[in-house]
Amino acid sequence: KKGWSPQQNLFYGFLTYVLVGFLLLLIPLFSKVHAPALDHLFIATSAVSTTGLVTISIFDTYNFFGQFIVMALFQLGGIGYLSFTTFMILSTTRKITVWHKKILSTEFTLPNTIKINDFLKSVILFTLIMETLGAILFFIAFKNEGMPTLEAVWSSIFHSISTFCTAGFSLFNDGFTGYVDNHFINIIISMLAISGSLGFIVITDFGMWIKHKAHKLSFTTKIIFYGFVLLLAFGTTFFYFFEPSITSLQGDSRFLSAFFQCMSAMTTVGFNTVDFGAFSQAMLIICIFLMYIGASPSGTAGGIKITTLTAILAIVKSRLQGSKNVTFLGKKIPMERLYIATSAFIFYTSLIVIGTFLITFTNDLKLDDIVFEVSSALGTVGISRGITSDLNTFGKWVIIFLMFIGRLGVLTFGLAIWARKSTNENNEILIEDIAV
Amino acid sequence: KKGWSPQQNLFYGFLTYVLVGFLLLLIPLFSKVHAPALDHLFIATSAVSTTGLVTISIFDTYNFFGQFIVMALFQLGGIGYLSFTTFMILSTTRKITVWHKKILSTEFTLPNTIKINDFLKSVILFTLIMETLGAILFFIAFKNEGMPTLEAVWSSIFHSISTFCTAGFSLFNDGFTGYVDNHFINIIISMLAISGSLGFIVITDFGMWIKHKAHKLSFTTKIIFYGFVLLLAFGTTFFYFFEPSITSLQGDSRFLSAFFQCMSAMTTVGFNTVDFGAFSQAMLIICIFLMYIGASPSGTAGGIKITTLTAILAIVKSRLQGSKNVTFLGKKIPMERLYIATSAFIFYTSLIVIGTFLITFTNDLKLDDIVFEVSSALGTVGISRGITSDLNTFGKWVIIFLMFIGRLGVLTFGLAIWARKSTNENNEILIEDIAV
Ligand SMILES: [K+]
Ligand SMILES: [K+]
Repeated sequence: KKGWSPQQNLFYGFLTYVLVGFLLLLIPLFSKVHAPALDHLFIATSAVSTTGLVTISIFDTYNFFGQFIVMALFQLGGIGYLSFTTFMILSTTRKITVWHKKILSTEFTLPNTIKINDFLKSVILFTLIMETLGAILFFIAFKNEGMPTLEAVWSSIFHSISTFCTAGFSLFNDGFTGYVDNHFINIIISMLAISGSLGFIVITDFGMWIKHKAHKLSFTTKIIFYGFVLLLAFGTTFFYFFEPSITSLQGDSRFLSAFFQCMSAMTTVGFNTVDFGAFSQAMLIICIFLMYIGASPSGTAGGIKITTLTAILAIVKSRLQGSKNVTFLGKKIPMERLYIATSAFIFYTSLIVIGTFLITFTNDLKLDDIVFEVSSALGTVGISRGITSDLNTFGKWVIIFLMFIGRLGVLTFGLAIWARKSTNENNEILIEDIAV
Repeated sequence: KKGWSPQQNLFYGFLTYVLVGFLLLLIPLFSKVHAPALDHLFIATSAVSTTGLVTISIFDTYNFFGQFIVMALFQLGGIGYLSFTTFMILSTTRKITVWHKKILSTEFTLPNTIKINDFLKSVILFTLIMETLGAILFFIAFKNEGMPTLEAVWSSIFHSISTFCTAGFSLFNDGFTGYVDNHFINIIISMLAISGSLGFIVITDFGMWIKHKAHKLSFTTKIIFYGFVLLLAFGTTFFYFFEPSITSLQGDSRFLSAFFQCMSAMTTVGFNTVDFGAFSQAMLIICIFLMYIGASPSGTAGGIKITTLTAILAIVKSRLQGSKNVTFLGKKIPMERLYIATSAFIFYTSLIVIGTFLITFTNDLKLDDIVFEVSSALGTVGISRGITSDLNTFGKWVIIFLMFIGRLGVLTFGLAIWARKSTNENNEILIEDIAV
């Protein structure tokens, strides 16, 4: 709609998806058993935000059609309603309006060097290829485990999309804990989730790099890639050596599950092969830290993103060295970008504190479980210590808000709500600003 | 010493105080009973940093001379070793060197409008007057409670200095819980602690404002004053209505103890009239938030300070309104100052997370108790859920480091350790930078 800022369009767009999804899920035709309306709203928000937290079992509550609606919601949420609608426009008019390009650059936070149209085609193509490939591999894996063919078909499609969109919804009530020793399934999930979460931008950049030897990887891609590998090694090492529920595992399973749980928190896919409820306090902190960061700004992951972390680290490092300019790996980071990164950091951290306080204030649950749940919701991760269905009505509303804000991005959310009515020129500024 | 930056001088100055204090406390002549060396180091650091966390009872461990050394340490730490040494120079040479002025402006983060010499005299005079007044009032109060005269003399001097320097050391093993109903003692402590923590700069500004009608209160003073009153009202209201161990109290005591506990966390004096170990989880979060903020940058309080909070709020507010300039109450905040505020915020928050992780990783204690203890140490508050003496050797070292860094200020600490060797011109910049 004209007159709205790009941020407001995203806000109302996601809100519309949530509400339509909620109304569809309310229809008794799609449910096996009756569930309270608030739980349907929770599931709709969780799906659109690709979080994967659930207050009711997806498999036990919804029939095939209900499950299909949930899948459609996280597919839409995952690709982003803008890339989807713009694809519609593209395929019918073969021309994106200037205004739609602006929205896209808000949604995907692209540097100007990559062209919008090429990018969008790659997004859709990449998504389709990965999800199809994922579904085929899942099907083979599930058949190997002796699942009936029809069930395996549906399960493989559902879990492939759920993994690539880092939604983390599962048709199994205990997640993937039954497959902790299945190397194949562990690898399928890891590859799909990493691809989706690292983001189209990084993958496109890599793709061009592989195709054309002349193409140089962008600074952003390098930062994201190195940051991701470093954090993954860091988390996996801690889980492997210090998490009792993982050190007790034998052989390959020990490394695999350390890697899987870390990958799950970082990519914010949110699947689990061991029970997070059994995690030790110290490893919970590592886990919360990983969820807090997330992965790439152009992917499906939540969190403050590796790029923001980089800016934050650069600020502190430069400050402590008493240097006036903020540099990272020798490159000077523009003041404006630092301003955005710090705003995101402060706002994100405040939301976690406020969310934690509100739930602690109204629910008789343990503080560590609550911080974990809140971080998981705002980071759109979806792992839980098992308290989601124990939350009271107010607590569920808090998590619903956090998931929604987390998917939208804290700054986009803030700008949608509080931004002053602005001229076209200001809109340009807003868009440039949000590119962290 | 020449060749050191002001930050390095502060660092080594405080370190010297800690080490001298530690060596003195080691001397068996000053102890009633033997205590491990690490505990003496803990007490020395806690005293110099005016934190007040203790692993051993001050009264049970040290005799009068030992208690006197502890008092001397927190008196030195409270006024700051620089104002003290510069006072020595002042009274002998009647002239401060340019270089010493620089250090002073680092320590007290003065705006340039207040002259150093006048300021320093006010600091010393103000401290002496307040501590004498406090001691007299404490003496009356303790005599009223039936304390023997000699004991009352010593107790009133010790607690007056301890309160004004917001050290929070007490000769009573259960703090001031025995005086929860004593209005007089509650008021003495509150007045002394607020004076000390609001800071010499605010008090001086107020003093000039009262004396000379032409004098206008500085923007900083107004921000600190309004911020302090607002946070005090906020915390007191929550404790009064929602903290079970306070709502169970009758009449005046209920309001008084709500106010006292909030005042104690904010001024970072760290005395308590109710048991923080009994606080509910939600109120712990409020408490941690208050300790996190602290009070004025020129006072004896720890925390990130109200001024930093203001800058942080201004950044988020301006960002969310999509505005390019960061303003607060209509005033534009300079970019440089924002940069310092965000660095402090990020570094402070990181230290709390890292400290919490290190203790959780090595001690089998509850997460909420650990976060509380770590926030209390870095904020130099000194309230505890009672786990201080349960910490293992590594845990005690972590708290020792946090108290030391907290007193020095996170940025001063960072600059002392990591700042590049800098020219004189750079030194000027460093000093200007730290004035938040
Ligand atoms: K997820
Ligand atoms: K204290």
